[in-house]
Amino acid sequence: MADFFAIEQESPMITDAAELERLDQKSQFHPFTSIADLAKEGPTVMTSGQGVRVRDAHGRDYLDGMAGLWCVNLGYGRTEITEAITRQSERLSFFHTFNGMTSDVVAECADALLKRAPVPMSRVFFGASGSDANETQLKLIWYYNNLRGKPEKKKIIARWNSYHGSGVATASLTGLPGMHNYFDLPKGPILHVSAPYYYRDAPEGMSERDFSRKLARELEEVIEREGADTIAAFFAEAVMGAGGLIPPPEGYFDEISAILKKHDILLVADEVVSGFGRLGTYWGSQTYGYEPDLITSAKGVTSGYFPMSVCFISPKVWDVIEGAAAQTGIFGHGYTYSAHPVGAAAALAALKLIDELEVVKNVADVGPHLMNGLRDRLGQHPHVGDIRGQGLMVGIELAKDRATKEGFPPANRTGREVLKAAAKRGLITRALGDTLVFAPPLVINRAEVDELVDKFALAVGDVLG
Amino acid sequence: MADFFAIEQESPMITDAAELERLDQKSQFHPFTSIADLAKEGPTVMTSGQGVRVRDAHGRDYLDGMAGLWCVNLGYGRTEITEAITRQSERLSFFHTFNGMTSDVVAECADALLKRAPVPMSRVFFGASGSDANETQLKLIWYYNNLRGKPEKKKIIARWNSYHGSGVATASLTGLPGMHNYFDLPKGPILHVSAPYYYRDAPEGMSERDFSRKLARELEEVIEREGADTIAAFFAEAVMGAGGLIPPPEGYFDEISAILKKHDILLVADEVVSGFGRLGTYWGSQTYGYEPDLITSAKGVTSGYFPMSVCFISPKVWDVIEGAAAQTGIFGHGYTYSAHPVGAAAALAALKLIDELEVVKNVADVGPHLMNGLRDRLGQHPHVGDIRGQGLMVGIELAKDRATKEGFPPANRTGREVLKAAAKRGLITRALGDTLVFAPPLVINRAEVDELVDKFALAVGDVLG
Repeated sequence: MADFFAIEQESPMITDAAELERLDQKSQFHPFTSIADLAKEGPTVMTSGQGVRVRDAHGRDYLDGMAGLWCVNLGYGRTEITEAITRQSERLSFFHTFNGMTSDVVAECADALLKRAPVPMSRVFFGASGSDANETQLKLIWYYNNLRGKPEKKKIIARWNSYHGSGVATASLTGLPGMHNYFDLPKGPILHVSAPYYYRDAPEGMSERDFSRKLARELEEVIEREGADTIAAFFAEAVMGAGGLIPPPEGYFDEISAILKKHDILLVADEVVSGFGRLGTYWGSQTYGYEPDLITSAKGVTSGYFPMSVCFISPKVWDVIEGAAAQTGIFGHGYTYSAHPVGAAAALAALKLIDELEVVKNVADVGPHLMNGLRDRLGQHPHVGDIRGQGLMVGIELAKDRATKEGFPPANRTGREVLKAAAKRGLITRALGDTLVFAPPLVINRAEVDELVDKFALAVGDVLG
Repeated sequence: MADFFAIEQESPMITDAAELERLDQKSQFHPFTSIADLAKEGPTVMTSGQGVRVRDAHGRDYLDGMAGLWCVNLGYGRTEITEAITRQSERLSFFHTFNGMTSDVVAECADALLKRAPVPMSRVFFGASGSDANETQLKLIWYYNNLRGKPEKKKIIARWNSYHGSGVATASLTGLPGMHNYFDLPKGPILHVSAPYYYRDAPEGMSERDFSRKLARELEEVIEREGADTIAAFFAEAVMGAGGLIPPPEGYFDEISAILKKHDILLVADEVVSGFGRLGTYWGSQTYGYEPDLITSAKGVTSGYFPMSVCFISPKVWDVIEGAAAQTGIFGHGYTYSAHPVGAAAALAALKLIDELEVVKNVADVGPHLMNGLRDRLGQHPHVGDIRGQGLMVGIELAKDRATKEGFPPANRTGREVLKAAAKRGLITRALGDTLVFAPPLVINRAEVDELVDKFALAVGDVLG
């Protein structure tokens, strides 16, 4: 039986750092963490945030080069969002949208989102995370093809190195072996094709455009081998995030889109990270000029202040679903927190700020400034193999040998060492193997970008000279 | 391209009911809704809530007999939770728990939850919904059996009529044909056994105890047929919710638990609805006296004010995972909104209120009062077949013929007609086929229960005489 007396002492907040670290370590099973590392090093406990910075329980400040997890796009402590959350929580702290119910703020939010879609869209479907949204998309795709009399057209193609979520099906879709091993994944009718990883995978001397054509041929070969009548959809992030910060080579989406259209295969744009301005356009698909049939987004829609995801459904898919409505009855899918009114209020506040603060314009300015800064400081470093990205999504891939691109031995965990050196200097980055990545708040200014570059270059120097 | 000029007119809040209904209808794809019904009837737009009541855009008030979706356990407009959300959102509006990071309030919350577990538990894993939590459990179960050298022990048994979520895998686990049809589900190594549906499925004259034994025999036959070495886990709600409000017959969990233990099969208690007091004990497993190896909860943990879920991991499972940590490296699973600090703050406030308001004690008092009230008013009604439940989770199953238990023709949608009549009288219920259910806020008082019963009895009369 639980010890209810021990609860007495709880009072938000415990402020002693060692006590907080102890509580966390003995109580929480951390996502995407090495249990062995955590046991050795203990957790880092954050306590507050303002603008682009967070502070830990020891009073140390960090410039958050990752905006949390690519999500706090408008920065920490944005009072307009917190006030919207407060007002809505006071007014209607929860309601749902099952069985034709809704709430006023949800109706407004759905409308506001549709108006911002990059291509005409018919409906939005809400959830609470990018993972649940991609689970929704998978189910919708199968539903759609059943309704239009194509019950065999069900396989899904994703790419190695992609990240599409952590549910059983969405982790299967994800092309990261570290998310498959020990979990018996991938499961389901899922195929993976090559990542558009120009730096590592393009044959010596091949142009980006030719590499894109090569990948398109591979895709078409898979489609022809399996039979186009068995392939329902292709999922793609605009720029691969967790799989190593991999932007598409020139012409990639043109080539891929043409093949998908030809074979009647839906293009699902995973814009969980790239949506709402991160690449310097409102949507990642606008940066690269492709037209999705379905869009998944989350993160930036509320700047991470409230868990919310949104699926955009194109007329092509919606019309089939709506047309069969009399036959299908109740649409048997949804989440308790689909269209939470407080999430909708947070989203409306965030959307307004994105417009008013001209966030997309800022990214188009400071994104290249970040890239130039990194290239100036580290472009010739003997252990920096590649600096790549788009907008405020940048990756720096380390290499033991810059000329041959040979990497460091994985056991060295070089990327992680650089991450730790950066943390000591008050900068948060993320290590995806030996690629260090940055995706700072989209409101970061030039001076803060300069600070980020400086701290990072020093951290690289700390570890690699 | 989106029409950005049209956005100008947005200002939370539009208050015109017809306009809100129009916006919602043309923009939102509703979960668990008949698109055809919605097209005909339009949505109901809620605008505010206080205590056990919500108000729609026409100014009509409703007693919310469903606490949203079995979740607003502490009622609407609970200032302590909203204030906790506000304070935390101002202080640290987001942080994550990947790579050993955490936040102070999350450490406190994890500790507070472990102290409240019904049996000793080692760790909590956070998410944002019951669905994502059950996806986590499935992945954990496979992970665990791989690590302990039982790679063949992977099948999962759930029950018909169960509800465990809406992801691809969790909707597969769910035993509702309406969530499988058109979606190509179930997928995966999932088996379903009979629901413990005593009213409908027990042979004439069989006692509850004997019916429980019959179901236990069925379970053991399935295990023996498939081979115990292939079966990893059994998922069960304490009282089935969305599948028709089905409490276990006497002795059910005793019988089932013994068989699971004998065959080294994990018992996963889905306490998404039953956790945090709904059945008149803190946990549903305490009402029926079984000991889970894994617990899934959500909803009541924040009273629906913020999307949060929690998986409790027993020492049995945790010790295997921790023991293999040096080998497994980074645990490749997690969600951006795993352990959102604002959710943790909401949960801490909710947990405190559950204690201070003596919510569990209130349920133990008003739950039977609700049951008695319904039985007094409707127990002899010719079209009421069964009134069943536990604590504040009650179902009223309609029947065309009370004596033979013959149901109404499904095409009549009798349950839905009663729901609509109740709404006209200012009461929200939910129709699961022809079973009407109530799961009101746990802070409901006796007078409000009397009002609920009265309005419901009148609504039944409106439709069925």
